[in-house]
Formats: sequence, C-alpha cells, structure tokens
Amino acid sequence: MPLEVGVLGYGFMGKAHANAMARLPMFFPDAPEIERSVLIGRTESALSDAADRLGFDSIATDWRDVVDDVDVFYNLGPNHVHREPSIAALEVGTPVFCEKPLAPTLSDAEAMAEAAREAGDDVPAGCAFNYRFVPAIQYAKRLLEAGELGEIHHVRGRYLQDWLVDPEAPWSWRNDAELAGSGALGDLGSHTVDLMRFLVGSDDLAGEIERVSGHLRTFVEERRTEDGDETRPVTVDDAYSAQLAFANGAMGTLEGSRFATGHKNDHTIEIHGSEGSLRFSLERLNELEVLRDGDRGYETILITDEDDPYIDHWWPPGHVIGWEHLFVHENYEFLSAVAEGTTYEPSFADGLAAQRVLDAIEESNDRGEWITLES
Amino acid sequence: MPLEVGVLGYGFMGKAHANAMARLPMFFPDAPEIERSVLIGRTESALSDAADRLGFDSIATDWRDVVDDVDVFYNLGPNHVHREPSIAALEVGTPVFCEKPLAPTLSDAEAMAEAAREAGDDVPAGCAFNYRFVPAIQYAKRLLEAGELGEIHHVRGRYLQDWLVDPEAPWSWRNDAELAGSGALGDLGSHTVDLMRFLVGSDDLAGEIERVSGHLRTFVEERRTEDGDETRPVTVDDAYSAQLAFANGAMGTLEGSRFATGHKNDHTIEIHGSEGSLRFSLERLNELEVLRDGDRGYETILITDEDDPYIDHWWPPGHVIGWEHLFVHENYEFLSAVAEGTTYEPSFADGLAAQRVLDAIEESNDRGEWITLES
Amino acid sequence: MPLEVGVLGYGFMGKAHANAMARLPMFFPDAPEIERSVLIGRTESALSDAADRLGFDSIATDWRDVVDDVDVFYNLGPNHVHREPSIAALEVGTPVFCEKPLAPTLSDAEAMAEAAREAGDDVPAGCAFNYRFVPAIQYAKRLLEAGELGEIHHVRGRYLQDWLVDPEAPWSWRNDAELAGSGALGDLGSHTVDLMRFLVGSDDLAGEIERVSGHLRTFVEERRTEDGDETRPVTVDDAYSAQLAFANGAMGTLEGSRFATGHKNDHTIEIHGSEGSLRFSLERLNELEVLRDGDRGYETILITDEDDPYIDHWWPPGHVIGWEHLFVHENYEFLSAVAEGTTYEPSFADGLAAQRVLDAIEESNDRGEWITLES
Amino acid sequence: MPLEVGVLGYGFMGKAHANAMARLPMFFPDAPEIERSVLIGRTESALSDAADRLGFDSIATDWRDVVDDVDVFYNLGPNHVHREPSIAALEVGTPVFCEKPLAPTLSDAEAMAEAAREAGDDVPAGCAFNYRFVPAIQYAKRLLEAGELGEIHHVRGRYLQDWLVDPEAPWSWRNDAELAGSGALGDLGSHTVDLMRFLVGSDDLAGEIERVSGHLRTFVEERRTEDGDETRPVTVDDAYSAQLAFANGAMGTLEGSRFATGHKNDHTIEIHGSEGSLRFSLERLNELEVLRDGDRGYETILITDEDDPYIDHWWPPGHVIGWEHLFVHENYEFLSAVAEGTTYEPSFADGLAAQRVLDAIEESNDRGEWITLES
Repeated sequence: MPLEVGVLGYGFMGKAHANAMARLPMFFPDAPEIERSVLIGRTESALSDAADRLGFDSIATDWRDVVDDVDVFYNLGPNHVHREPSIAALEVGTPVFCEKPLAPTLSDAEAMAEAAREAGDDVPAGCAFNYRFVPAIQYAKRLLEAGELGEIHHVRGRYLQDWLVDPEAPWSWRNDAELAGSGALGDLGSHTVDLMRFLVGSDDLAGEIERVSGHLRTFVEERRTEDGDETRPVTVDDAYSAQLAFANGAMGTLEGSRFATGHKNDHTIEIHGSEGSLRFSLERLNELEVLRDGDRGYETILITDEDDPYIDHWWPPGHVIGWEHLFVHENYEFLSAVAEGTTYEPSFADGLAAQRVLDAIEESNDRGEWITLES
Repeated sequence: MPLEVGVLGYGFMGKAHANAMARLPMFFPDAPEIERSVLIGRTESALSDAADRLGFDSIATDWRDVVDDVDVFYNLGPNHVHREPSIAALEVGTPVFCEKPLAPTLSDAEAMAEAAREAGDDVPAGCAFNYRFVPAIQYAKRLLEAGELGEIHHVRGRYLQDWLVDPEAPWSWRNDAELAGSGALGDLGSHTVDLMRFLVGSDDLAGEIERVSGHLRTFVEERRTEDGDETRPVTVDDAYSAQLAFANGAMGTLEGSRFATGHKNDHTIEIHGSEGSLRFSLERLNELEVLRDGDRGYETILITDEDDPYIDHWWPPGHVIGWEHLFVHENYEFLSAVAEGTTYEPSFADGLAAQRVLDAIEESNDRGEWITLES
Repeated sequence: MPLEVGVLGYGFMGKAHANAMARLPMFFPDAPEIERSVLIGRTESALSDAADRLGFDSIATDWRDVVDDVDVFYNLGPNHVHREPSIAALEVGTPVFCEKPLAPTLSDAEAMAEAAREAGDDVPAGCAFNYRFVPAIQYAKRLLEAGELGEIHHVRGRYLQDWLVDPEAPWSWRNDAELAGSGALGDLGSHTVDLMRFLVGSDDLAGEIERVSGHLRTFVEERRTEDGDETRPVTVDDAYSAQLAFANGAMGTLEGSRFATGHKNDHTIEIHGSEGSLRFSLERLNELEVLRDGDRGYETILITDEDDPYIDHWWPPGHVIGWEHLFVHENYEFLSAVAEGTTYEPSFADGLAAQRVLDAIEESNDRGEWITLES
Repeated sequence: MPLEVGVLGYGFMGKAHANAMARLPMFFPDAPEIERSVLIGRTESALSDAADRLGFDSIATDWRDVVDDVDVFYNLGPNHVHREPSIAALEVGTPVFCEKPLAPTLSDAEAMAEAAREAGDDVPAGCAFNYRFVPAIQYAKRLLEAGELGEIHHVRGRYLQDWLVDPEAPWSWRNDAELAGSGALGDLGSHTVDLMRFLVGSDDLAGEIERVSGHLRTFVEERRTEDGDETRPVTVDDAYSAQLAFANGAMGTLEGSRFATGHKNDHTIEIHGSEGSLRFSLERLNELEVLRDGDRGYETILITDEDDPYIDHWWPPGHVIGWEHLFVHENYEFLSAVAEGTTYEPSFADGLAAQRVLDAIEESNDRGEWITLES
C-alpha cells in the first residue's frame, strides 16, 4: 500500500516537493512507494490546474478534511498557516513535514514542537531545512565529525538576495509581521542558523549557541501592492546581522539580506578550526573548498564522486546536480522515516531551536544588548 | 494519442533520457504527450529490471521488431550500433534520435545522414549534442548572433577527463577502434566541435572550419579487461589536440583527454571577438563569463534569471539547475519537432559535419600535415 | 634642500617605508627630494646594521635628540611608543607620520590628535592606513563618490590571519594590553574601520558610524616567550567581530582574526548599494570586482590600466604591482604634503576616529550592549 | 670594486632593469655591488633625461664605445639590435644580458649562441626569460623535479594580450618582420616555450620538444604610423598557435595573441601528469594551483611563505609581490653569476633552443605540415 500524501500549498515549494516525490522511484528505488493523493489550497480552479500539473489525484479546499485521512501531511503554506494544521495532523498521529521557518512566533513554534513530542517518536515531524541535504554540506559534516578541522574558532554564514532592493518591488505576505513573523531573519536566517547547528552544533565541536547580538533593518518602509492600488507598510526586516557566542567559545557572524544587489540566492558558510577551514556557496553547490591540516590553501573539490553523499543515486563523476536535487534527498529521508516509523532530522525540535536563536536575535535588536539563550 | 517511444540502450544515456522524458509533463506542459513504450537491449533479465526502473511499458531484444512500430526511436547504443538500426528506422519513416558521435566511421555517418535526407524534413533525425541545451550556451549564442562579440578571432575548446589516467583502469568498448571509432577524439571532441559549429559556425561569424591540424596519442597501449583475465589492446586515442582555421580567418584550438588528472567532466569553451570575449565551463554550467564592448573584465553571470533560455520552466533566479536538465531541454525540443513534423537541430547532418572535422583531425595526425575540408 | 627624515623603528615597517622612500625618485619624479637622515632605535649594533641596509645616513638611540632636528619624523615603533615622541615632534612643528593603530588607548589617541590640531594645518600628521593607497581601493572610492553604487545598504570587512592559531606560537608585544592596547581589534580592525570610513564615510554615502556591537575573544590565554623560558598571559583579543549602524541606516559587519587557519593576510571589503556592489581582497590587490547598475554579475577588473590610480607611474596594463607599492603611494602623498605644507589624509584625526570605533567595540564587548558613539 | 654596468635601451625594459638593480642592495645584500655606469641610446636629450631618472652615471650614443669598457653589458634594444652588440661584447669577454626573443632570425640566434660558447663558461650570456623567476614557477619546478606530478602527459601554455585588437592601434617596430623577426610568436611565444622547457624539459620529465605544428595569423594587414601620416604593412603574426610532441610522448598546445579582447598580460601554464596537475596565471602571479596525488581538486596556494623561492628576501606571508620583483630575482642571479664567473641560465643556448622551436612553428605554418626538430 503506497503512502498517501496530502500537500497544503502549490506555489514554489509545492512544485519543488511534488517534483521530488515524482523522481524518487527512478533514482531511489528503496524509497517507500507513495501517492500524491490530495493537494490542498483555497482557490478551487487554480488548485485544480496545479493538481493536474503536479500529479495529484484529488484536491481539497480545507485541510481539516485531509489531515486525518492521509498517511503524511506536508504543510507548505505561508508561515502563519504552519501552526494549526500541523498540530491538528500530529494530534491524529499523521506525520508532518513543515516548511521553514517553523512558525512566525516563538510561542507557535513551541506549541508545534510540543505537539510533535506528544505525537511520539514514531510520528516524524520534519522541518524543511533542505540545505542540510546538499552533498557538499553532508561531506563537510563528515569532515567536521571526523575532527578534521580541529577545535572550532569561527563560523560565518551569509544569505544574500536582492529581490527587494528595488523600492518598486511589490508588497507580499513576506513583508508582513503578522503573516511571516519576520523578514530576512526568518526566511533566510533560519536556514543559516540551522546549517550552523547541523555542522558545528554537537558538543565536541562548537556546541550550542549561547549568546547573540542582533541587528535588524527595514530599508523601505512601505510598498505598493501587486495590483498597485494601495501601499502597505513593511513590518518586517529587509536585512539582519548577528554575532554569536558558542558554548566552546567559538565566534559566529551571520547576515541575511534581501537588499544585496546582484546576489540572487547566495548562501555561504565558512568555518575556521584549529586544524583546517572550509567554505561553501549555494550558487556553486556542487563544490566545497576545504583546507586540511598541512594544506596551505583551499582545495576546490567537486562533490560529485560516486562515494560522495547521495551521488551514487545520480550521475557519474563531474556531472553536476542542481538545487532541486536537495528536495529529492530530503523527501527520501523524510518519507523513509515515515514508512519505518523512525525519527527524522531536522525535526520540529530543530525548527524550534533555530527559532529560539532568531527570536533572541530580534530581542537583542530591540533591547540593544546581547541576549543569553536559555539552555 | 501519446507518441510511443522506443529506446535502444539502458545504461547511463538510457537513464538520462528516460528521466528527461519523465520530467517533461510537470515542467514543459506544452511538450507532446509520450509513452515510454519499449526498451530494447540484449540481456532479457537486466533489460526487464531497467524497464521497470526507467518506466517503460515493455521490452524487446531485437530492434528490428521495434523501429517500425514506435513513433520515435532513440538509439543510445555504443557507436558501432548507431548505423544499422538508425537507418532502418528512418527508412520506415520513424524519427530517430541518436547518441553522439553519430558513427564510428565517416562512411557510416554519411550513410546515416543520407538516410535522414531521404526520410525527409518531416522525419526528424537528431544527434545528441546535449551541450547545445545548456542555458548559458544558448545565452552565449544569443550574444554572438546579436554581434556583441564582433568579428571572431579566437575559439578554444577543451574537454578534460581523467578516468583512464590510472593504467589499471579496465578496458572497455570505448578503447576499441572497431566498436567506438575513436577515443577521446570522438567521445569528447565531437561535443566540442559541435559547440564550435553551433556558436560561431554561421557565415556572419567564423563560418565553416576549413583546415585542421590534428594530434592523437595513446598513452597506455593495453589494458586488462573488467574481469581481469586478459589484456586487450587500446586501439583508440587517449587524448587529442587540434588547430583549426575558420572561413573568416579565425583560429581555433581544441583539446580532449581522458588523462587530465583531477578533471572529471571539464568542458570549457572560450571565444574572443573584436568587441568582446566569453568563457564557459561545464563544471559551473549555470555560469557564463562575458566581456562586452567597454568592459574591462569578465562579468560572471548566473544564467538563472526568468528570461534566460529555458529557465522560466524551472525555478526562481539563483536556484541552479544540473547536468540532467540539458536532457530535458533536448528531449523537449526533439519530441516537439517529432510531434509537429518539423526539422530538428542538431540533426544527422550536424552529426556528419562534426564527424568530417574529427575525421580530418585523425587524417591530419596520420599524415603529419594540415588537412583541408571539402566544402 | 632635501627633506631630512628621521625614522623610529627598523623592523618590518621600517623596511617597508625605507624601501618606499628609496623608490620615489625613479617612479614619482615630482616627489620632494628627501634624505633618509637618522634611524632611531634602542640597540646600537642592530640599529647600525639596519641603517646601513636601509640607507640611512646616521643613527640615534634617543628620539628626543631627533624630533627637533629633522624635517619629518616617522614613528614606526610599537603602539605604546606612539604617543610621546609623536607629540614631542608636533610640539616643535615637525610633521609626523605614525603607524596604526594611532595609540594603545583612546586617551592617548585623543592627546595625539589634539597635538596635531595645535600644530596646525601646515604640519601634516599622518596615520599609516596604507590600504587607502591600493589602486583598486582608490578606484572603488571614485565609483562610490560618483554615486555608481547608489544608496549604501551593506558594508562588510574582514581581515583574516592565522599566525596565532598554533598554541605554540610565541608570545610577543602584540599579545600584551599594555604595549599594544588591543590585539586583532587594533592591529587588523583599525585598517578595516579606516577603509570603511574612507570608502563610505562621507555624508552623501553611509556617513558616520553611529552605533556598534562588539565581540572579542582570546582563544589561547598564555604563551611561551620566544626563548621558551617562561609563559606570559595574553591580555588582548585573538579575534573580534562587530556590527555597525551607519548614519544613513546602512548596516556593517566586521571581523578580524589571528586564528583564521589558512589565511595569511586576507583583508576583504564588500559593499552593496541600491545600484551596485563591489568586492575587494588584499590577496588579489590588483583586482576589483564591480557590479554596476544593469549588470547581472560582478566584473573582475584588473586595476592596472594607465588611467587607474597611480598606475601611470609604474608599468603597462596587466603588469601587476605588489603590497609594497602601497607604501610608495603613501609616502609620495605624505611627503608631498610635508613639502607643500598642506594637510594630509588619513590624518591623526582619522586615526582618532577609527580608534573611537574600536574603543566602542571593546566597550560594547565588556558591557554586552550596543554603544552609541558621540558625534 | 663595483661591477660597472652598461645598458642599451631605456624604454620599458630599461626602466624594469634599472629599478631591479637599484633594489638589490636593500633586499639582496649578498648581491655583487654594481654601478649603473652607462646608458646607451640614440637621441642624446631623451637619453640624458632617462639616465638621470634611472640613476646612470653617464650616457653614450654608440654601444661600440661601451661594450669593452664595462664589466657587464645589457642589451635591451629592439630585436634587430640584439645580434651585433651582444656578439661584440662577448668577443671582448664582457658578459651579456639580452632581452628576448634572442634574435629576429634563427641564424642570428645561432651566431649569438656560438659567440657565447666561444666566450666561455666564465662569461655569462643570459637571455631575459624573466618568468622563470616567478616564485610560483620556481615552486612548480621544485614539485616537478621531485616527481610529484608523475609522468607528464599534457602541457598547455597561453599568452593573451589585446593591444592590437583595435585596428586603429598604431604601427610599431613590433609589427615589422625585419625589425622584430616575428610578432606574437616571438614576443609572447618565446616566453611560453622557455617556461615549458624550464618546467618539463628535463629528460626525466617530458624531455625535448621533438615535433611541432604551427599556425600563424595576421588579422589586420596594415596600420597607420604613430603620427598617422601613412600606413605600413604588418609583416608579422598577430597571433599564433602550436601543437607540440615531446620526447616522452607528452602533448603540448601553445597559443599567443595580441587580439584576445580583455586580456592584458595573461600568461597561463597548465600541466597534467599521471600523479597530479598544476596551473599558473601571470595575472595572479603570487598564486599556484596544485593538485597532488590523492587530491580531488586544485589547492590554491599563495606562494608568499618564508621558505618559498626568494620570498625570505621580501615580506611576511601574505604580502604579495608584483611583476617587477621577477626582474630583481633575475638580476640578482645574473649579476651573481657575473661576479663569480659561473654559468647562468636561461643562457643564450636556452634562447637559441626556444628560437628553434619558434622557427619550426613558423616553418610548419608555411609548409602546412608537422616539423621535426633536429636534436
């Protein structure tokens, strides 16, 4: 019996996940069999077209009708829709996969993580930090876990986009505090914080993020709506930066912006340890730059060899993969966990942990002082 | 009625094309509807598994049983199997898509091109020069056609791999002159020559390749078979280089090698014109480096904007695509031509034209002198 | 009559400036004629050797004997020696050129700037922020002043070194708060802050740095002395980071470290404005990456054309210059100001302004809160 | 007694060598003491100014008056002036340093090499292949000599400039076959061929260049003179390419152009061996990219560490040097050989060897066939 999957949302993320599900059988033959069962949205006609294009069997306009019936529920809606349907699904024992950031507010995120805890370990609740599934990032984690970088001193993360630098760019839900929670901080920063936690968060590396100092800015205070009839206030940040102090004493700096002219989707991670360093950029996601003990410079490695993470499923060495492949890896891992009733990471707990850091960054910005995270 | 597709070959290329076909409906909704109908091979059990995995309805062990029944025939077999089935299909009016190089010998290629000519313009016969379908390459062609590089002076192409540099790497059909025709020259050089023709071959740019000087080398003269029981002679080149003279006086240099330590699939193209220059590398296939009139340095452009070639079908700006996407573009164009009964390029005629250049390079190497191509 | 120059210090900086002075006549024929008159130090024998090698006419072991006699006084000693001799020279009307950071403490810096003010505009007092004199940096400033980057949103500066990452690296005066004032913050951060002020500090760009958040860390708390007989405490930071808020609302992030494994002298500056962006790295000091309005990617420009800043004095296009050339430009500008009795920038006032920022960063670190700079 | 140096030529090269000589005492204290004694040229007034600026004691308008009087003779004149004065100097036992290419014709080069042979080993005759003295190139040679790249399979050299791509660029002696011998081939190709010989020419690496195929082109057939009054024919090549076959079977490709739009002085060398690969570019002359056995990608090394070739004479790690430093190294080596009466390389014999290759490339172009070099 294939797993029946219900998906809320059919925009950019809906397409990315539907594509990923469609590709599993050919490339990950041991993935559980699934059925793209129900696509959920508000506007019936658009929904119907999307279901057709994305290969769903049926549609529904109310998630309440779905979360109990399906075997898995994907919540790909805007941030303010993350909480209620996700909790409802978990309460009836349906595994949930939710887009990031986990929720617009910390209390929402806490409620969602609590629901996941109560649902139990055999009901996976995943948070969509897809960049964990870049082969180069997984390769980097292997290096770090093997101790090849030694004691961690510096981590640096930047996520640069420029889609709002034009003051005429229209208002969207992403500019609204009620709907989105925050701006660049939640949208971009959640990815960066999660990668930091994933890569160096273990106790034998940098450990937990203990203190943060944050800085948020809104460069353009109001924008016209798409149809141009009115302006609405931008109530979230256009850009943020932060300083981090880790448990082991490592220092971190973060940045995220929608105003970085010329950068479309430029997520970079840099780490310096006592024995080595590494650098990664999402715009060259098949590459990792590594400096190991004894090296004098960075080695630019194409992470497309057969024994690199996930690569044996794809193509021969040197045949690069794209951004969408991360979703295939992610869906493979999540759906396998669902089928086997095992835990999945990044979980709602990871989503909450990232949120705590983001929340502290925002609070630090408001109060003008470093904030210590509760451990 | 969907187009029924028959495919000969289920190795690397079989997987790449089956995947491409599977992805068309979601991303290219205006592509003709197709059915992966028959998969053709020699060993029934392996074939059956592959058909399952690659989504084919049935299998056949003799292409003769298929070429007349299907609406399209894909010939993805080794080079020495290109001629007979392709011609048979064309003779019964079945469109053919054939892997590159078109054939192991020039006379085979001529016979195939002749068969395509006789089949007529409404029976597309395509040659699988997939690198024409890199968005960055199409973007480069747009620049060239718009005259932005001015008069063409220099073209440079290199295709570097290293899978044979280890003398213990096993013998394969690709090392055999009978089966493959040539080595790096045909396998890698055919791609490079086709890109040169595609990009600067028109009369208002560099025009035809008129003269060539060739150099071929076999570094390891015999290799053990896969099972290690015996050694077989390597009767093709491990690497080649060439100099080109174009009709307009432009100079070209080409290189291809299976002995370029550290390079996995590194296909680079560089062009200098009187008004500008450009550079492309397959290992960073989302990027193009362009120097326009008035620029002082190369601009590194990420070819992932909405109005870049094919990109509106995929993801938002900055979300990179991979190598396999070229096959989706290629299949889209070829299958659309089949459905509409229009001509398709790169055609068998293009395959033959590339072959003439490769053949002249080999002859030049044998004779130790420049060879003038017949026009 | 040539200007008689007295120089305190004959280490790394002594050599760099002596070389610069020696090269002026051949490459900057309009520079004032000078004489390397007196070299000042403590140990007579070493001093005598150095004077010989660096081309000085005489030596002195007490700066008090020199500052009144010479026409110009270069103070290249360790930070704690900056104040007294510099002020003494200015008090007798001798122009002073002092290494950076201007002083180990803010009050020292204030006293020095006050002395410079009192000496008057025709007694130049220069602070050795040599990176202002990189042709690519001057070129960047031209672009910024012409408004080509538009409204400034983000600035980013990083100065990465790794000479202390080995815990066995010996203790030096640079590790001592009394002698150096601070560690990476003063040594590296002063350069970065000055470049930020130079590039975007004018009121029509980002304006003054108004608020800062700082983070300092000492990773290795004590080190053996050079001769290995004892350990001494490291009382300065090994690394720092900071967030900046500029008058126009622009955000800045800074970092400096002596623990960035694999980085030797990697000073990078990045700026994003509403119309464009730019990037610079000291390890490729002949290059500037520029993204202008309408560009889609960064153009990598070799700043070695005849009309690039200072380049007409050197070599034809494409013939790169090195780090030491910055000192030639700097000495040319400073000595010309001395000869003409005009003001020179970066001045002691600039040194003080940078120091105020560094001091605020340190205070912010101590107090765990953002610090607002007095305007 | 300092060595008295006579220098013919006070243009670009005159300045580069005068500067190099001036810098020796401070940075290479063990270099022989020299005196810039006589500067030789045709136009007395210009010569006098130059002598002043470049630090020469006197001038002469006829080299015949000088070659016997001085201890060393530098021949930095145009190519057609290389032969006569160099031979005259050698005949009276005066060591000679001559710019490259050694001579406009092979017979001139042979006569010069013969004169050097007759002068004997204690009369150094150097040819100005300055790129041998790039620290990164010397470092590469160390790697090659240590066998780190294994058996050499491929070498690739390109020297790209664009100063003639504008058809309005004026005619100069470099465009005239009588005065220059050849164009890009001699001017740029001589450097590339010499680096190839230097790096892989030894018998345990690639060995001698045995066969060549050449291609020469003149894109613009006549140009206006500087004053614009008349046009003169361009009788040399604007660009060349070549294929090489080495004694060990390695393949080489060379290119040089004055029409490579956007490239100012871009000399790149790439080598692939069975165990590793390396890449160098003159525009980033402080860097070397190295791929060693076991590496998966190139390591980008900054060749500025204390134990890198020549670096201990200059600055601490990470402080890059420039193009002119190569001349300091070259003069240091040559003048040391003169002082000690030992042989110097690259010698006139090396200049001749490079010329033989260039001559064969030109002959190959004329005859349309591969040319075998006499061994």
